[in-house]
Amino acid sequence: MQAVVSIIMGSTSDLPVMEEAAKILNDLRVPFELNALSAHRTPEEVEKFARSASDRGLKIIIAGAGMAAHLPGVIASMTSLPVIGVPIKATLEGWDAVLSILQMPPGIPVATVGLNAARNAGILAAQMLSLSDTELAGRLADFKKGLKAKVVKANEELRQIKFDYKADA
Amino acid sequence: MQAVVSIIMGSTSDLPVMEEAAKILNDLRVPFELNALSAHRTPEEVEKFARSASDRGLKIIIAGAGMAAHLPGVIASMTSLPVIGVPIKATLEGWDAVLSILQMPPGIPVATVGLNAARNAGILAAQMLSLSDTELAGRLADFKKGLKAKVVKANEELRQIKFDYKADA
Amino acid sequence: MQAVVSIIMGSTSDLPVMEEAAKILNDLRVPFELNALSAHRTPEEVEKFARSASDRGLKIIIAGAGMAAHLPGVIASMTSLPVIGVPIKATLEGWDAVLSILQMPPGIPVATVGLNAARNAGILAAQMLSLSDTELAGRLADFKKGLKAKVVKANEELRQIKFDYKADA
Amino acid sequence: MQAVVSIIMGSTSDLPVMEEAAKILNDLRVPFELNALSAHRTPEEVEKFARSASDRGLKIIIAGAGMAAHLPGVIASMTSLPVIGVPIKATLEGWDAVLSILQMPPGIPVATVGLNAARNAGILAAQMLSLSDTELAGRLADFKKGLKAKVVKANEELRQIKFDYKADA
Amino acid sequence: MQAVVSIIMGSTSDLPVMEEAAKILNDLRVPFELNALSAHRTPEEVEKFARSASDRGLKIIIAGAGMAAHLPGVIASMTSLPVIGVPIKATLEGWDAVLSILQMPPGIPVATVGLNAARNAGILAAQMLSLSDTELAGRLADFKKGLKAKVVKANEELRQIKFDYKADA
Amino acid sequence: MQAVVSIIMGSTSDLPVMEEAAKILNDLRVPFELNALSAHRTPEEVEKFARSASDRGLKIIIAGAGMAAHLPGVIASMTSLPVIGVPIKATLEGWDAVLSILQMPPGIPVATVGLNAARNAGILAAQMLSLSDTELAGRLADFKKGLKAKVVKANEELRQIKFDYKADA
Amino acid sequence: MQAVVSIIMGSTSDLPVMEEAAKILNDLRVPFELNALSAHRTPEEVEKFARSASDRGLKIIIAGAGMAAHLPGVIASMTSLPVIGVPIKATLEGWDAVLSILQMPPGIPVATVGLNAARNAGILAAQMLSLSDTELAGRLADFKKGLKAKVVKANEELRQIKFDYKADA
Amino acid sequence: MQAVVSIIMGSTSDLPVMEEAAKILNDLRVPFELNALSAHRTPEEVEKFARSASDRGLKIIIAGAGMAAHLPGVIASMTSLPVIGVPIKATLEGWDAVLSILQMPPGIPVATVGLNAARNAGILAAQMLSLSDTELAGRLADFKKGLKAKVVKANEELRQIKFDYKADA
Repeated sequence: MQAVVSIIMGSTSDLPVMEEAAKILNDLRVPFELNALSAHRTPEEVEKFARSASDRGLKIIIAGAGMAAHLPGVIASMTSLPVIGVPIKATLEGWDAVLSILQMPPGIPVATVGLNAARNAGILAAQMLSLSDTELAGRLADFKKGLKAKVVKANEELRQIKFDYKADA
Repeated sequence: MQAVVSIIMGSTSDLPVMEEAAKILNDLRVPFELNALSAHRTPEEVEKFARSASDRGLKIIIAGAGMAAHLPGVIASMTSLPVIGVPIKATLEGWDAVLSILQMPPGIPVATVGLNAARNAGILAAQMLSLSDTELAGRLADFKKGLKAKVVKANEELRQIKFDYKADA
Repeated sequence: MQAVVSIIMGSTSDLPVMEEAAKILNDLRVPFELNALSAHRTPEEVEKFARSASDRGLKIIIAGAGMAAHLPGVIASMTSLPVIGVPIKATLEGWDAVLSILQMPPGIPVATVGLNAARNAGILAAQMLSLSDTELAGRLADFKKGLKAKVVKANEELRQIKFDYKADA
Repeated sequence: MQAVVSIIMGSTSDLPVMEEAAKILNDLRVPFELNALSAHRTPEEVEKFARSASDRGLKIIIAGAGMAAHLPGVIASMTSLPVIGVPIKATLEGWDAVLSILQMPPGIPVATVGLNAARNAGILAAQMLSLSDTELAGRLADFKKGLKAKVVKANEELRQIKFDYKADA
Repeated sequence: MQAVVSIIMGSTSDLPVMEEAAKILNDLRVPFELNALSAHRTPEEVEKFARSASDRGLKIIIAGAGMAAHLPGVIASMTSLPVIGVPIKATLEGWDAVLSILQMPPGIPVATVGLNAARNAGILAAQMLSLSDTELAGRLADFKKGLKAKVVKANEELRQIKFDYKADA
Repeated sequence: MQAVVSIIMGSTSDLPVMEEAAKILNDLRVPFELNALSAHRTPEEVEKFARSASDRGLKIIIAGAGMAAHLPGVIASMTSLPVIGVPIKATLEGWDAVLSILQMPPGIPVATVGLNAARNAGILAAQMLSLSDTELAGRLADFKKGLKAKVVKANEELRQIKFDYKADA
Repeated sequence: MQAVVSIIMGSTSDLPVMEEAAKILNDLRVPFELNALSAHRTPEEVEKFARSASDRGLKIIIAGAGMAAHLPGVIASMTSLPVIGVPIKATLEGWDAVLSILQMPPGIPVATVGLNAARNAGILAAQMLSLSDTELAGRLADFKKGLKAKVVKANEELRQIKFDYKADA
Repeated sequence: MQAVVSIIMGSTSDLPVMEEAAKILNDLRVPFELNALSAHRTPEEVEKFARSASDRGLKIIIAGAGMAAHLPGVIASMTSLPVIGVPIKATLEGWDAVLSILQMPPGIPVATVGLNAARNAGILAAQMLSLSDTELAGRLADFKKGLKAKVVKANEELRQIKFDYKADA
């Protein structure tokens, strides 16, 4: 099975955040791979990865990083594939990671999602792939319907709560 | 009993914050309802709710949300009823929720209260309703008097504390 | 003509911001008054004003202030009328005014609008008054319809712009 | 010519920022359209647009907004097409727009680019479309090569500068 | 014993922070009193306190408050005695309290100390009183000498630490 | 005439801010001196100044500085006289100066006033001196009365403004 | 063994952060010393230390401090040796320490590393010393190679994780 | 003349900031070179530069960048030479550049100076080089003496200012 999405992180300490991207891609049946790469500790491996990504059949790269988070931007500078950046909260409430990923200079965009929002990164990747994959588009549509379930369930629980002046549901 | 205030939240995880609005409305004998609605997961339900709110007899809507908190503003764009927004702290110390609710564009105000300040949202709703409900105004005035009790009690406790150079109380 | 809304500011240097509240109330035919009061320079006048506001027939108070902006909160502590706070940008990008108004302690809410958003404060006041004034509610509904005009006009202007790869409008 | 990218903004005051997206799409020969829509002033039009976007042949939506910037997120909640959000600086240095777009809740991602970075939004859209359009991919690769020209030219200019202790270039 | 410093707080929940001011004043033998007052819940008591402070023999007022912390500024507007403000961290990392106390408008200064720095507030009060009390000045000088003890002790502890490449102390 | 307040700044570029302290002290007839000292460029002069300040008859030191503003804190570490710190805005909106002055460690307080608020620093110095100078206390009381004049004048100007729905003043 | 790096901190409460600098210097066989000095509590000792540092054979000073962190800058003002500053998080998420160290005025640089990043301070010191010590340069090169090991190990761990749609590693 | 310091920037738009580093190095007679390199637009050139820097005789690299400023960190990951990072203000008041450079992950330090502080970067480079160049150390010592001149001159100017209550200088 050929991976079309590559999920990259700098160390396994980022795994609890980044595995949410893997889980949703798995649920949506999008083949993916997991890689450890560091913009600063393994710059050659990052370059090798980025330069060969398209030839290896990858379509989208999801890169998570914390602090001065250069990984998503560095990869984006070496490939024309869309790169989705996940800022990971490590210090300073995560502001360093958010700004280091979001504020890319002209010409080299990174599609940034919210702090620690790896699950949203996976969904965004699936949305991009759905543009030329109608079956995936269908699974995504089902997924979006499922999002309402939590809200419906919440309403049921709110109905249980008793107050004297609460109106009848 | 017809609800005049509707308290809205996106999920039951917001309930520990938002139930403070329900409690104070209950104490002030203002009929209210609790609803789960999500600007992003159930946009049709949000619209249906907002469009029919006035016809259903609602006077004021209290909406709490965290992160990129669109719920209060989206409802405000679909009704002329006053909407009170409660930013809920979820990440980034709550700055995202505060700014997403407070900084509404010209023409569509949201009456924003402090971070997690659902109790104040309930009091504010009661103040608005008191403009045409003198009995409620009386109960509110009593409530305001009660606020001093805590300060009086604090003074008594401070008087117990012993220091050599503390002046006689 | 009895004012039902009082617009308060600390000095005439705040007038360019705060007169937007006056203009929209004027357009919506809501009787209002303009006052200069300072939480720090005229504390007795502030108290006299706040204590008598309801008896004088006022329904809503709009208070704008910058820096350590205490005026809205101080007034809110002395009346049960709804107080709408307008943070005015003077220094530190306005963060001081936003937080000094928004983050009121439990029991004393201020309905805060966005930075310099006096026009939204006026609209919010009209929304509160509409709860018991159906004619004003009608004018507000007309106003809300008018908000779309700018967007429609924007669309027409966007249609004029020529690019080779722009789709036919 | 069928638009595949729709560039959306709330008013023509956002055009100086957002036309950079149009220009780069034009340069890359990607058919696009320009629309004025407001999450708060024209919620019905936003919904109509978002619900029909895919059927109309659109592939990607670029939405720019300032302040409490709800437009990108609201559209993302009503379509499975990828939505690229452009925070526009209007007040508070743009922090409100950045956080209102970036920090979307789980399930509804917005691919956020930097503050006022509409040009990067256009490039990101082209990167997504290139996944199934090899000719566009070629043009994008050419574009990326062109990015170096500015740096080469900068080097030539730096060589002109005279200092006694500057090494020979 | 006549109090010359009054330490004010809004509730006993602020006591763990504010008692540090009491402790250092006690150590320096400066007669003080402890009071609970709230700018918003007991505005009349605040006024009565501030207006009579000087006549009661008070010289300096130390006021601590959190959130939209109006207490120090409100008191400063009603007396010419120096008011020392202690921002107390309650939410938003304490930024709201810092800005609400520090950024007072022209004419009404509050001598602000760091976040939760009630001990420094007590020392600052003693420094002011020392201007006309040479015995207190002597005790303060002794206190300042004592500050070095902690650093000397730290040096001794650092000397115990063993590393191969640590130089001999 | 013996100076009792010393106003210190790092360079004449700070004079437009700091001369406001001189002006108000002059108006209140408090003898003062102006000095240029830099915590980083003239550390010996700073030490000489701080160590001899009390012996020279100085009572209070007002120190203004921008960026990583160490001057007020460094002086405070070398004297027991009260030091009033004025953060001066130079970069980063002034946040660096505010935090470098306000957040002094335990034992060495600096009485911090708002950003660029040298006038308030002068008033605060006068308030401290008034504790043992009843004539100055009288002039300060007169000054405080004068603060109301601006508000009264503002009210007169607001009365001139014409709107159809403005209530009669 | 003559220390060439001096690691300075204000109290032993900073040791858990600052000992990381000692550990890496020890690993790289760079002779160092540990000192407790406080810009505010022991200003004379700071001066004595800084003035004699070069004569004592020290080459580089690493100074860690929290809050209004003046220690690195004060030392830098009294020596021409490179000073590396380590902001230590104590309050306000560490923003006060970062800005008080980083934003030094023109003429007196401090080489600032990230929040709590004492280990990086030690590495930076070793990099500076390597400029004239080829053996140390060799050990540093080995160290840099070792940084990849963690990433390689991370990759092995990621390969263990099982998902249905995960590509074969 | 062999350059020992390389000053790098992404484009000539950064030159007005970065030439301050060149000027001070020139004044201190430190041979330097100026280069344009972009972490994102010319990643191969960055790598080639960084890998060969030491062999070419460079001792120190000064890299300036704005926004998500990856250049200093990327170079630091590819060489063991000390890298001095200069955050350049472009947007968001420069916070993005500060955090992207300062908050480097463990193992790869960047010696960060203040926002736009290229002159301090040059001085810091000279301080590092002085460790093994006593002539340069002498010129640096002279330079440091010169820093006082501005403060002395400021004092003379302050002496000219006339106020009635200004003490005799």
